[in-house]
Amino acid sequence: MKTLIKNALVIPMKNNGEYFRSDILIEGGKIRKIEKNIIDAADDVIDASTMIALPSFVDAHTHLSMVLMRNYKDDKKNLQDWLSEIFPIEDKLNENDILTSSRLGIAELIKGGCTTFADMYFFAQATAKAVKEAGINASIGLTIVSDEESAVDRYENRYPLMTREADGYDRIVFTVAPHAIYTTTKDGYIKCREYADKENLKLHTHVSETIKEVEDCIKENGTTPLKYLSEIGALKENGTFIAHGVHLTDEELDICEEKGISVVNNPSSNMKLTSGALDTEKLLKKNINVALGTDGASSNNNLNMLKEINIAALSASLKAGVPIDAYEVLKMATINGAKALGLDYRIGTLEEGKDADLILLSTASVNMNPLNNVFSSIVYSSTSEDIKYVFSFGKKLLDNRKLTYIDEKELIKDVNDSWNDILGR
Amino acid sequence: MKTLIKNALVIPMKNNGEYFRSDILIEGGKIRKIEKNIIDAADDVIDASTMIALPSFVDAHTHLSMVLMRNYKDDKKNLQDWLSEIFPIEDKLNENDILTSSRLGIAELIKGGCTTFADMYFFAQATAKAVKEAGINASIGLTIVSDEESAVDRYENRYPLMTREADGYDRIVFTVAPHAIYTTTKDGYIKCREYADKENLKLHTHVSETIKEVEDCIKENGTTPLKYLSEIGALKENGTFIAHGVHLTDEELDICEEKGISVVNNPSSNMKLTSGALDTEKLLKKNINVALGTDGASSNNNLNMLKEINIAALSASLKAGVPIDAYEVLKMATINGAKALGLDYRIGTLEEGKDADLILLSTASVNMNPLNNVFSSIVYSSTSEDIKYVFSFGKKLLDNRKLTYIDEKELIKDVNDSWNDILGR
Repeated sequence: MKTLIKNALVIPMKNNGEYFRSDILIEGGKIRKIEKNIIDAADDVIDASTMIALPSFVDAHTHLSMVLMRNYKDDKKNLQDWLSEIFPIEDKLNENDILTSSRLGIAELIKGGCTTFADMYFFAQATAKAVKEAGINASIGLTIVSDEESAVDRYENRYPLMTREADGYDRIVFTVAPHAIYTTTKDGYIKCREYADKENLKLHTHVSETIKEVEDCIKENGTTPLKYLSEIGALKENGTFIAHGVHLTDEELDICEEKGISVVNNPSSNMKLTSGALDTEKLLKKNINVALGTDGASSNNNLNMLKEINIAALSASLKAGVPIDAYEVLKMATINGAKALGLDYRIGTLEEGKDADLILLSTASVNMNPLNNVFSSIVYSSTSEDIKYVFSFGKKLLDNRKLTYIDEKELIKDVNDSWNDILGR
Repeated sequence: MKTLIKNALVIPMKNNGEYFRSDILIEGGKIRKIEKNIIDAADDVIDASTMIALPSFVDAHTHLSMVLMRNYKDDKKNLQDWLSEIFPIEDKLNENDILTSSRLGIAELIKGGCTTFADMYFFAQATAKAVKEAGINASIGLTIVSDEESAVDRYENRYPLMTREADGYDRIVFTVAPHAIYTTTKDGYIKCREYADKENLKLHTHVSETIKEVEDCIKENGTTPLKYLSEIGALKENGTFIAHGVHLTDEELDICEEKGISVVNNPSSNMKLTSGALDTEKLLKKNINVALGTDGASSNNNLNMLKEINIAALSASLKAGVPIDAYEVLKMATINGAKALGLDYRIGTLEEGKDADLILLSTASVNMNPLNNVFSSIVYSSTSEDIKYVFSFGKKLLDNRKLTYIDEKELIKDVNDSWNDILGR
């Protein structure tokens, strides 16, 4: 299968601020050529003369199956109050719920231009199955939420299940995902790190999301969360990405810089749950790799990366008091996310030889005209309706806003059936 | 022409938190009936069993024609730096530029579910013409930007032009719109107020957008902007709406409450230009009427009210440290906006006898399922792609995402022609 994209405004996300008009030839899941006037008898030719070609987005922190609880017990809740409503529901979930809701979540991600996500949830083998079906990329972490040391033993039992599900499908990587310091013990964290080392996996965890977490940590451990994790040896150098990081101290930012720890910004969730706002500009200045995530749909309440990009830009400017460069925000949503997940050798930029994970975003809508600044137009003016085509490993998953690989109506019915069943359990 | 909407989830925005399933009959531009199982031989019948019916949105502060400058000289700018880039361009605009760009702006508003806007710009007669063509509502203010007392004389010359353009079309109201205290003199403001009294018009002005504005005002006038305007007699009781108000003091909030002054929140613009964030929750507690606006597309950079609703909610929660009620945000975008503009007797709620200005928003998309909370789903989970139908005065302006009254491609071409011409002037 060969696809030829003609005359797109290509933003490779490789060199700062670079864009140019070009054709793109996709073959065998890979970007074969990026050059002008490619002549080739492709199976599919797309006229992209009114479209921007961009690497598809990387959602670097989510809890995919929480789409089930989208808007459930919403409003008037901060993180702790909200979690106390959510945890009892999570206790009732089964593998089938996770499969149907993962399918819905993936559909939503794709419609927002995303083909790679970092997950942290339960029944990871079901999520892996949904990822394979769609044919996208994922970094799947099985959440460790436990006050027992046995957490990792359970993980050791489940890891083979997850990898078995992914068998032969190399676009899934796994992570060890201890939930947070307020749910996982010191020993749990240390065992997670040892396990990550042993299996050569990345670590994915929540750190410094709220002031309460920081204050409680100081009370209990005499220091702030990331510093605590660093001191107990829970952080893997160049192999850890942390979600939120809203309240990281300057000293902790230095730790991130020194140890090559990526920070995943989740602006909607942090604003909605009144956790605060990450000072993105400050982290970027320190050369910390800042990625972007939607967090779970029940604290956002959507999985739309294009929305998140807009909100990330606005939130960063407000926080820093200095307007952020739109291109930097696009980096967060593409190559920085790929780096955080360790997938930048395959995705995150448009380059010959990399996987053909890309989107075509129309500039023909009223909201994209006049097109005075291509980066700002994507970050501030576009909506997901402008994302006409989404490719992952060369496969066209979204075709003029229609999902090609799944029946959307059936999918929605399945998820509602699951959810109604859960409520009755 | 009769339109019958069958079986919608109706949110009338009349009584707090109310929604129910019902039919809606539209006739002669008005909502004739809201009841179950209406049987009527309507010209157009819409099955809305997977749709929410909601009053169409009111964009209570914008500069419509600034769509021309969308993303122009973007990034790395605060308000003052940005204005210094924009003012020279504005000096080159002519009436035709304003007509074509108003048409584009209106198209964008409609696609985001909005059929009423409060404008503040130049060549208001051209904007009035575009409003009439589309058949929507507007509160049009001719900006007074002047250090001369003659500003209002010029207004007096232009007001007849504006009203002549609207002749026979009663869905346009006009406002007197002094720009801001840093561009308009004391005498200018007083004359504006006198003129507004004489012609029975509302006053629309920018107040307390940035810290710099506040500090400069204290230096020059010994007091803060709104208090200054109050002291010089520039505020019309129950007849003034102010944009931004980000830095209003508690004393000034009391003035808003006492004098019935509406405050229009513009969260995207305020975040993007690093002006700050309105403490919406505080204003609502004081029973101040808080409306919502996109501001101009060049400082947002879009005119999408549904996006603005999402960002208004997130921004309010972050600022207050208390999550805002999603229903309150929907009020800001509908009935509160209508009240600010003095149009609540006609629009802003779904009630029998009111104008048929409403939207049908689909709940059949992946991002709207499961539908656990109807208000949160609109505020946080929907995208403008879900807005399938938009009616203004009973006329279907958007039909399954397609504009019915204008050719979108021609419109975009015209605006780009105008813009290229401006750049060459």
